Amino acid sequence: MVSLKLLSLFLPSLATATTLLSDPALIAKRNTTLPTKFGILLYPGYTALDVFGPLESINIYGQAHTIDLYLIAATLDPISTNNVFTTASNSTSYFSVLPTHTFATAPQLDVLLIPGGIGEVLVDEPLQPAVDYVASIFPSLQYFLTVCSGSGLAARAGVLDGKYATTNKQVWDLTVAKGKKTKWVGKARWVIDGKIWTSSGVQAGMDLMYAFVGEVWGKEFAVSSAQGMEYLPNVDARRDPFAEVHGVSSVYDDLVMEDGRIKE
Amino acid sequence: MVSLKLLSLFLPSLATATTLLSDPALIAKRNTTLPTKFGILLYPGYTALDVFGPLESINIYGQAHTIDLYLIAATLDPISTNNVFTTASNSTSYFSVLPTHTFATAPQLDVLLIPGGIGEVLVDEPLQPAVDYVASIFPSLQYFLTVCSGSGLAARAGVLDGKYATTNKQVWDLTVAKGKKTKWVGKARWVIDGKIWTSSGVQAGMDLMYAFVGEVWGKEFAVSSAQGMEYLPNVDARRDPFAEVHGVSSVYDDLVMEDGRIKE
Repeated sequence: MVSLKLLSLFLPSLATATTLLSDPALIAKRNTTLPTKFGILLYPGYTALDVFGPLESINIYGQAHTIDLYLIAATLDPISTNNVFTTASNSTSYFSVLPTHTFATAPQLDVLLIPGGIGEVLVDEPLQPAVDYVASIFPSLQYFLTVCSGSGLAARAGVLDGKYATTNKQVWDLTVAKGKKTKWVGKARWVIDGKIWTSSGVQAGMDLMYAFVGEVWGKEFAVSSAQGMEYLPNVDARRDPFAEVHGVSSVYDDLVMEDGRIKE
Repeated sequence: MVSLKLLSLFLPSLATATTLLSDPALIAKRNTTLPTKFGILLYPGYTALDVFGPLESINIYGQAHTIDLYLIAATLDPISTNNVFTTASNSTSYFSVLPTHTFATAPQLDVLLIPGGIGEVLVDEPLQPAVDYVASIFPSLQYFLTVCSGSGLAARAGVLDGKYATTNKQVWDLTVAKGKKTKWVGKARWVIDGKIWTSSGVQAGMDLMYAFVGEVWGKEFAVSSAQGMEYLPNVDARRDPFAEVHGVSSVYDDLVMEDGRIKE
């Protein structure tokens, strides 16, 4: 039994989110509908935090609005975070998640998010079905998000050609090689180019998502949801100390960037 | 095929971790063995980020050392993050994870981590098996970790009686009521009392885990793993802006705290 008293503790942040849905100025500004159908592409050896960091914001929003989440993989078999290193160390420090759809059965999406992971960095040919899926669905998406080396998979699908994007800084060289026509930005926590939102490594996905929900669902929701998850976001897309830590730079590092978008 | 060149990109951080395992000063300092068996207690409606934030550090360590991870629930049925709010909004923005063990079959553990979640805050009697499990296994643990309102479940098991602990700040009142003998610290990102490590809400679990791996596996590993996940940790346990945001304070807020431990 859930009492009204208990529910009321959650209502302040939920009420804010509900109000935003009917804000005509917000809707007019985008001149489109709000995204409600989120797909997350999964593959063996993906990095969990690339998914579950950003997903927290979607979870919170989904508690006051009807949001659909699809976990999409090659088959409906459980997808594990296990990778060659865990196997080599004889560790069992991985877990399995149940996909909800396959590339063949996935419905129309508003947003697709692609996580990174050792399963993307060190795996080539077995991920071709995922690459093909991305290439086929990309045109119909409202937004396309990648976290960490997930932008490598996207690059292989050709959807980042001629676009600004960033990626994991620790394995930068490996990833940028997958997209020779991509304008890879080194010093960037996240980058936005049109409908394409790409973040740097792992935990950067949460900063990207904070910026994303702020633009899509409003600043008030972004702030209240971050407060609810007790998260202090990095709101400066150019603030990327890990580019330096991992010795990464690019020719686009000195261009003016506004809220993640390069000003040409 | 994984080439040596590819592996070498990951080796710097892995090599550091491997070296630490044989550091006699580190081992002597603890006068005990390093933890290798990690259990995570799962229940319906847990908060994913409470688990997968901290788990990232364990994952990274587990790539160079044999670490066992057990996902422990009441049964082996998939455990979903769905909760009353998602159900009420008709959202499908939740997912399921496969447990590896039940409370009855779980092996001996070195570390048990308890996440928080709406499934803990708003659920009472159905979680009694989890409470009983915590009470029974607590004495044999080397370390006991809670994230967010997971300390509420711990308090119900009686294991926080007379101990300093903290918890989620947004639903503070609900949680502290579950442990009338617990010394709840308001202004704290995390608190350590003996083998008990408790964190504030959701993303605070990552700061707790950063401090934990620094003490247990060494500062060098903590730093390199954070750099690998591109994460800037909050290293000051007293730095807790969300206590103020959510109007939380306690009589212990002005006591001296050193690395999360209250100095009496």
